[in-house]
Amino acid sequence: MALLVAVKGWDTQTWVARLKARFPDRDIRSWPDAIGNPADIRYALTWKAPAKVLAACPNLEVVFSLGAGVDHLLGQAGLPDVPMVRVVDPDLTARMSEWIALQVLLHHRQHLAYAAQQRTRVWRELEQPSARDLRVGVLGLGVLGADAADVLTRLGFKVSGWSRSKKTLEGIDCFAGAAEFDTFLARTDVLVNLLPLTAETRGLVNKSVLEKLARDGVLGGPVFINAGRGGSHVEADLIAALEDGTLKAASLDVFETEPLAEKSPLWACENAIITPHVAADSDPEAISDYVAEQIRRFETDGTLDNRVDPARGY
Amino acid sequence: MALLVAVKGWDTQTWVARLKARFPDRDIRSWPDAIGNPADIRYALTWKAPAKVLAACPNLEVVFSLGAGVDHLLGQAGLPDVPMVRVVDPDLTARMSEWIALQVLLHHRQHLAYAAQQRTRVWRELEQPSARDLRVGVLGLGVLGADAADVLTRLGFKVSGWSRSKKTLEGIDCFAGAAEFDTFLARTDVLVNLLPLTAETRGLVNKSVLEKLARDGVLGGPVFINAGRGGSHVEADLIAALEDGTLKAASLDVFETEPLAEKSPLWACENAIITPHVAADSDPEAISDYVAEQIRRFETDGTLDNRVDPARGY
Repeated sequence: MALLVAVKGWDTQTWVARLKARFPDRDIRSWPDAIGNPADIRYALTWKAPAKVLAACPNLEVVFSLGAGVDHLLGQAGLPDVPMVRVVDPDLTARMSEWIALQVLLHHRQHLAYAAQQRTRVWRELEQPSARDLRVGVLGLGVLGADAADVLTRLGFKVSGWSRSKKTLEGIDCFAGAAEFDTFLARTDVLVNLLPLTAETRGLVNKSVLEKLARDGVLGGPVFINAGRGGSHVEADLIAALEDGTLKAASLDVFETEPLAEKSPLWACENAIITPHVAADSDPEAISDYVAEQIRRFETDGTLDNRVDPARGY
Repeated sequence: MALLVAVKGWDTQTWVARLKARFPDRDIRSWPDAIGNPADIRYALTWKAPAKVLAACPNLEVVFSLGAGVDHLLGQAGLPDVPMVRVVDPDLTARMSEWIALQVLLHHRQHLAYAAQQRTRVWRELEQPSARDLRVGVLGLGVLGADAADVLTRLGFKVSGWSRSKKTLEGIDCFAGAAEFDTFLARTDVLVNLLPLTAETRGLVNKSVLEKLARDGVLGGPVFINAGRGGSHVEADLIAALEDGTLKAASLDVFETEPLAEKSPLWACENAIITPHVAADSDPEAISDYVAEQIRRFETDGTLDNRVDPARGY
């Protein structure tokens, strides 16, 4: 009946303490040093731990991913055939929408140009289009994409969205599937990526996609914003597009390899805003509450929220 | 029955053309060159023109201010005793809320620190408080302040407001009058000024007020954002507060004297974001429609929206 904490790059003991606080009477184990008899483990809470650690637990019932993305899990072969649950946390959703709203507003309100004017003490008004004339397209309309689209709509932007399967969201033009992808791109001035990383989305935003974005928009060129996963864009294509004007600007929080290499030309792109994968950090306390609540409910009625579909990839 | 365009610093002929498009059969005059017989003038549309120009029209019935603020008008002696109307334009309101949301998010999400890290190719995550823990206080709860408060609430911030007379706004802690001013300041991490400039608000945000802002907030120090009028702050006090840490940062779109002098130390403050009075530009077409609609209604039933109260100052 033990719980296993198997995290990489995070502090294991802090996570053990969080679980202890919520389940004082249970046996909390940790990988790699205090795993004990794997047959005791019923629930695993994991972030970037090897699949074989989970597969070695014969009585495992549920795997909880401790971050919103599950590509760290599904990208591995040899996972045990048990239900996997991803985190859906209102605090994480709100942080993501905040970061997206900030980046769209930064580009819309020409912050980089005004910051350059401030440095040279220039008082000059730039022509400012109305938000209702700026077409923002959100890739991915799950919990995160739907909330970001809603916040952007409240700010007055003209918002559309694209997802794998058709969604219906109030005030949002929803496109779906491969058949509608190019139509969606052609009416998008600011492309926001919030897709999960799957076999289908890997490398999706490449040269060809960037070239299909609207070029007749009020900003004078398209903008790409990525807060999903760096694996969904082709970084060499982004850099070339930022340099040759295919893209007017970009805001990137995620990268093909993280941390972003010091030698990457992206750091010095004057039309790129770079943040170090901080758009939406998981609040560990909120996530611990979420996992504890799910375990209690699972033990009462056998149900689980936000189960991952391994075939779909998220 | 003529209409008079009396604007300073704006292109008079463009405004005349806008009115001609809406009133093709009327006589449109302009100050200073084509005023004709002042006794013909029934309506004046003005921005920063001298009061004596208006007072010289004996049959004037209504004065329309062409910007949201009416301090350019009420600050002058010798105004004629006729109704004055200020602009309330949904497009202007939306632009103002956009700029405010952008500035609050910039400070909340530590943009200046991340931009500095980008310049030196540093990948480092900074501790990020939740929006619900950031207390934003809006000075002025008219049309602009109420909308900004609503947008900030949707973004998850903890919003309060202060106004001359008590307001009731859903989800906003409303404070009013001199008696509640210090209480309001003491629970404010980010102070947003949207007050009209009047005798009461001139120089309001001074050293003493800045020192009363909360110092126990999640950003580590208070932030001041001014999108109202520069005359409402004391610029020397702001500069000193930005330098000595009384303020952590500021975003300023308006200044005591505009354009901001090239020699002003504000340009070079690393913790100040300066924009050249562009937070919410009036859309001349929308304003022309608004004035035309008001004139038509006034001639039908004698009513006017958004009349200025000269005693109150806005």
